[in-house]
Amino acid sequence: MASNTLFLLPGDGIGTEIMAEVEKLIAHLNGTGATDFSYESGLVGGCAYDAHGVAISEADMEKALAADAVIFGAVGGPKWDDVPYDVRPEAGLLRLRKDLGLFANLRPAICYSALADASSLKKELVEGLDILIVRELTGGVYFGEPKKITDLGNGQKRAIDTQVYESYEIDRIARVAFDLAMTRGKKVHSADKKNVMKSGVLWDEVVKQAGKDYPEIDLHHILADNAAMQLVRNPKQFDVMVTDNLFGDILSDAAAMLTGSLGMLPSASLGAPDPVTGKRKALYEPVHGSAPDIAGQGVANPIAMFASFAMALRYSFGMVDLATKLETAISDVLEDGLRTGDIMQTGARKVTTGEMGDAIIAKL
Amino acid sequence: MASNTLFLLPGDGIGTEIMAEVEKLIAHLNGTGATDFSYESGLVGGCAYDAHGVAISEADMEKALAADAVIFGAVGGPKWDDVPYDVRPEAGLLRLRKDLGLFANLRPAICYSALADASSLKKELVEGLDILIVRELTGGVYFGEPKKITDLGNGQKRAIDTQVYESYEIDRIARVAFDLAMTRGKKVHSADKKNVMKSGVLWDEVVKQAGKDYPEIDLHHILADNAAMQLVRNPKQFDVMVTDNLFGDILSDAAAMLTGSLGMLPSASLGAPDPVTGKRKALYEPVHGSAPDIAGQGVANPIAMFASFAMALRYSFGMVDLATKLETAISDVLEDGLRTGDIMQTGARKVTTGEMGDAIIAKL
Ligand SMILES: CC(C)[C@H](C(=O)O)[C@@H](O)C(=O)O
Ligand SMILES: CC(C)[C@H](C(=O)O)[C@@H](O)C(=O)O
Repeated sequence: MASNTLFLLPGDGIGTEIMAEVEKLIAHLNGTGATDFSYESGLVGGCAYDAHGVAISEADMEKALAADAVIFGAVGGPKWDDVPYDVRPEAGLLRLRKDLGLFANLRPAICYSALADASSLKKELVEGLDILIVRELTGGVYFGEPKKITDLGNGQKRAIDTQVYESYEIDRIARVAFDLAMTRGKKVHSADKKNVMKSGVLWDEVVKQAGKDYPEIDLHHILADNAAMQLVRNPKQFDVMVTDNLFGDILSDAAAMLTGSLGMLPSASLGAPDPVTGKRKALYEPVHGSAPDIAGQGVANPIAMFASFAMALRYSFGMVDLATKLETAISDVLEDGLRTGDIMQTGARKVTTGEMGDAIIAKL
Repeated sequence: MASNTLFLLPGDGIGTEIMAEVEKLIAHLNGTGATDFSYESGLVGGCAYDAHGVAISEADMEKALAADAVIFGAVGGPKWDDVPYDVRPEAGLLRLRKDLGLFANLRPAICYSALADASSLKKELVEGLDILIVRELTGGVYFGEPKKITDLGNGQKRAIDTQVYESYEIDRIARVAFDLAMTRGKKVHSADKKNVMKSGVLWDEVVKQAGKDYPEIDLHHILADNAAMQLVRNPKQFDVMVTDNLFGDILSDAAAMLTGSLGMLPSASLGAPDPVTGKRKALYEPVHGSAPDIAGQGVANPIAMFASFAMALRYSFGMVDLATKLETAISDVLEDGLRTGDIMQTGARKVTTGEMGDAIIAKL
């Protein structure tokens, strides 16, 4: 078996601690012969700024581009709140997304049944919840130009951001959503603000056109503001939701929080398949952030990071069975009552980051 | 007492039915001598399109500009889904906001205690909830230019929307939020995406600068995606939230739905005080939409419309006591167990639009 290459970018805050668990996991999987991963690690975010004065170095960008998959922790923290805009921690993540062409961001919002009580929503509304938000990740207002602040004199400034979408960008993300929906509930909601935004008008037009190639898909249009409402009102009405970069940012965070499982949720960011090899560039990352308040204490929850690794096994390496095995191991330790501090419940057993990692690996 | 002038724009769907209750209310208030309102009515949205081919006629725009306050119902419905973009129902509302200079949109998210059970959130998280979202309403991506779709040939198109903010637009909405917060909990969260958007960077800079004039205000910055999460997680942590046009659209809808009182929530859209008279242009509107599915059946809930009228009494006419009296009348009929279909609960008495209106007026 040819060695598969990973590039690990732990980042800042709890990123380091949860990535250490991934290293244990890789060692275990390689040890059993189930995988043959080789990997290197790099710096991204605040720690990269401290070391190199930028949010990711050119050398690390090259390694990210060369790897079969990037495994990403989290970036940012109060220490870097006042660094210049272009080298702020998030810039590292945004550059990775853009330069690797990771246009398709998959964000499952799953309610782990052991944690249904932890949701702020009534249990019956979230138990069994399984939504997949497919967020466009390399276009829209995140990257459109002009994007600048102009000094108008008299103490006045003008700030501009530009939301731009071309048909092909909408078409390809719609097809990712349709393809994934075909493996699930075959229902897709496309969210935009076509009643106000021209990009929404084009979004809706292109999604509907692409939808014609998927006659089995039950396709719905929903305004983004109504989507936020409906997620709160009755999240189980959704199967797959496809939306743009900015709406996806907000709606996927709301959806993640609904589940009560925020510390558990993974994400995958995928590029287009290479026309020759069929391989996609990919980055896998937990939905939660760098949690500077609890960093370095060994109490962070490694589950979202492990679940992100499971997505890597599935989407980058076609190891579907192993991915499922890892996901089952995660549910199993939860059913056994193991909890890190963030998801602690009465009657459960509180464990450290390392103990949680060990327990999941032991289940494999 | 000089006559105060209102311009009523019922709009589409249930707009007509709930505005009929406002007319009853005005007749009652004028009859008791508490007020001396004179009013005219006009067309906006789909009905204006049917009558004039535009979403609001020039004659009605002139009346809206001349009135002391515009009372607005709701616009839109499937009948007009395919009318040209420039004359779609929403265009009437957007033009009113822009031409009347209604830059400050006040959206209270209040949980009526009689309805705390109706929220999808656990009761203890929403009971007593009282958030005020202050949304910028005449700038940002709603109105920025360029805003267009270009045909690139080869079946490809490019859509552009532009998010633009100037310092003065941010400063004035921030001050509205601070002034209102001073009459409430003195806490303001300013939400933006300054980690990605230059308009967010300027937003934060200007809000913080304006905040220096309000030393008593506890001012917090929050990223808009995190704001969506925190609204779901623990809404009671918020008092006043100030944000831009697009984030305000989404976050205020999510907040409204949290309360379980969506059919009850009002909004006010205010312009700048006239330098000479001190009067502000204003439009009052329920947060819910035109609900075409139940229109014409006499079952719509008029409470949000009445609560919007109460905001008009308070903000446009300085009739603070009367506004409070009307709001108390609304709570009272709810405590009495009266419910329209949308908020029906077991044990309550189901009433029609007209019965609900009469009951509230009888309490006055
Ligand atoms: C860190 C930030 C730039 C990022 C985004 O806005 O996309 C984050 O919120 C996310 O959702 O991955
Ligand atoms: C009808 C529509 C144009 C409007 C908006 O997007 O502002 C509505 O959603 C609102 O929030 O008032």
